[in-house]
Amino acid sequence: MTTNARLTPLAAALPSTVPFTGPEELERRRGAPFAARLGANENGFGPSPRALVAMTGAGSQIWKYGDPASHDLRSALAAHWSCELENIVVGPGIDGLLGDLVRLTVGPGDVIVTSAGAYPTFNYHVAGFGGRIEALPYRDDAEDLPALIARAAEVDAKLIYFANPDNPMGSYMPGAEIAEALKAMPDGTLLVLDEAYGELAPEDAALPLPVEDPRVIRMRTFSKAYGMAGARVGYALGAAELIRAFDKVRNHFGMNRAAQIGALAALQDQDWLGHVLEQVSAARAEIARIGSANGLIALPSATNFVTLDCGGDGDRARALVAALAEEGIFVRMPFVAPQDRCIRISCGPAAELAALEEALPRALARLG
Amino acid sequence: MTTNARLTPLAAALPSTVPFTGPEELERRRGAPFAARLGANENGFGPSPRALVAMTGAGSQIWKYGDPASHDLRSALAAHWSCELENIVVGPGIDGLLGDLVRLTVGPGDVIVTSAGAYPTFNYHVAGFGGRIEALPYRDDAEDLPALIARAAEVDAKLIYFANPDNPMGSYMPGAEIAEALKAMPDGTLLVLDEAYGELAPEDAALPLPVEDPRVIRMRTFSKAYGMAGARVGYALGAAELIRAFDKVRNHFGMNRAAQIGALAALQDQDWLGHVLEQVSAARAEIARIGSANGLIALPSATNFVTLDCGGDGDRARALVAALAEEGIFVRMPFVAPQDRCIRISCGPAAELAALEEALPRALARLG
Repeated sequence: MTTNARLTPLAAALPSTVPFTGPEELERRRGAPFAARLGANENGFGPSPRALVAMTGAGSQIWKYGDPASHDLRSALAAHWSCELENIVVGPGIDGLLGDLVRLTVGPGDVIVTSAGAYPTFNYHVAGFGGRIEALPYRDDAEDLPALIARAAEVDAKLIYFANPDNPMGSYMPGAEIAEALKAMPDGTLLVLDEAYGELAPEDAALPLPVEDPRVIRMRTFSKAYGMAGARVGYALGAAELIRAFDKVRNHFGMNRAAQIGALAALQDQDWLGHVLEQVSAARAEIARIGSANGLIALPSATNFVTLDCGGDGDRARALVAALAEEGIFVRMPFVAPQDRCIRISCGPAAELAALEEALPRALARLG
Repeated sequence: MTTNARLTPLAAALPSTVPFTGPEELERRRGAPFAARLGANENGFGPSPRALVAMTGAGSQIWKYGDPASHDLRSALAAHWSCELENIVVGPGIDGLLGDLVRLTVGPGDVIVTSAGAYPTFNYHVAGFGGRIEALPYRDDAEDLPALIARAAEVDAKLIYFANPDNPMGSYMPGAEIAEALKAMPDGTLLVLDEAYGELAPEDAALPLPVEDPRVIRMRTFSKAYGMAGARVGYALGAAELIRAFDKVRNHFGMNRAAQIGALAALQDQDWLGHVLEQVSAARAEIARIGSANGLIALPSATNFVTLDCGGDGDRARALVAALAEEGIFVRMPFVAPQDRCIRISCGPAAELAALEEALPRALARLG
């Protein structure tokens, strides 16, 4: 025995896993930094300069714990979303909020429904609390919400996970169609609507339902369009009763104070957000052009990444991801067939895309 | 029904609570900021200027997620503690790490042993996972480790919580005595040694046991002596097998990237730490002097706060905390008798202690 700790049966059965290997770890293994970091759907165009100024200014008060209520940020978000403070909980990224939500709702044997190849971190949390995962296939490279809802009714699911826009395929479903599909929602099933890429999507992706809709909890983040992945600020929007339940389990003093202040400044700089959306749009086109020049077909993207169909099977795409890494380009790819015929490239500044353009033919040549 | 979410029976039974009300919330209620923030054992002397520079510099990379392995920080900590990387897990403050540890080990009905009036957030986590709390009284204003261990053996406790130095009383137990007490430790009980105030304690508080000791997990933080409470960086030291188990449940991408970088810089500036310890020492003496001038007796402190015996019961101390708040001074106090005869004042810069000195006689006069 090397520890007196007696794990719970559930914990003992869990693997010591990491849902994703970080690019720093890949760099340590290869012994060199990447020339382009285009794999984690980070936003290399960066945050609002006002957010940076605000975070720097927050240094003088970093000796203070953050406000556990995230009051100022939630107030601004309530104004932004035309809802009440009570409809918003702020947490350390969507990952943390998903963990709290799963903990609140999923016990051993409870079922959730998701899509095969959708967000692994959600599955990590479900497994972590002993839940059972029902995974349905993608349909035409999109998560199939009506099918997810129908399955939820069959298996009495507690939660449905649905990302709009979708990661890793970049597709999206118009909000009006989501609202229509929700008419078939079972009473005891909650839709976890992961809108991490929401700001990057076409306008008709917006869900035309009030924040208080009892059937839905929406997850949003400052990690993607707002360019602050390293700050760790996400939030959930939902019915007050459900949002209040997070206070049962969350790490109340877990928010970085500078991040709270930076996120508030970022939210207040919608001009910068518009500027980033233009840059992302241009980068999407550039990635599609680079792919096309190399025989890889870009799927339509409602996000800050482009999924490129490599025209083969998962082995070919995996080999290409590995070859690109050897060429100094960090990208990722879908985990599950048939989506794993693709690779996924995040939008980034021109220099990183130029490095991609240079490396891609060499990487493809390595495949033979 | 206002939400489709069906909580687990455990979650449904939990209160939507906050272990501590933050000073910002108290300020919102009183409609004015505090003149002195001396209640949360924050460190108003602030972090190393090098840490501030490092965090500012990290702004240009805040678009990147933090390294989920916290590799650079853990490497520096491993050197600092003369242990291996595998003996260290970094998390968002001790609160977050305690939550993960409790989740790993405590299931419904499992017992932990702590002291009545010790850290409420630990109890919050235990209740949150359905554990049962056995609380023993303090002895001479200190947590009574031999009694905790004896009780753990009786009730087959999974965990013992023990803070050294203690919060809220400021006392400490020499490390040699802890090592001696551990000889009676049951095989299946893990000591959670909360050393949040460890850097502030006398040298003989240090535990003379290897980090890999199977009976102990130590919790450390950059929130107190390092003056970075708002950054949210804590870490646990323990046997590799136990540390590895955190990977089963932790929020891998939960760390703020600037905070990781700032904590590394803070660790590397031990001169600043020495400088802070001198200031804390002077502030402790000053708080004791102010207390004494007003008939309040300072208990010995091994921390960055001073606990003042108000010479009455809990009602008197609670009234004094409220009266100080009305005078613009934020302090806290122990929750449980007989410790609640005291108030607890954090060390802070001269201006804040001057505000305390001015307010205290007025606050006492309010008590009549």
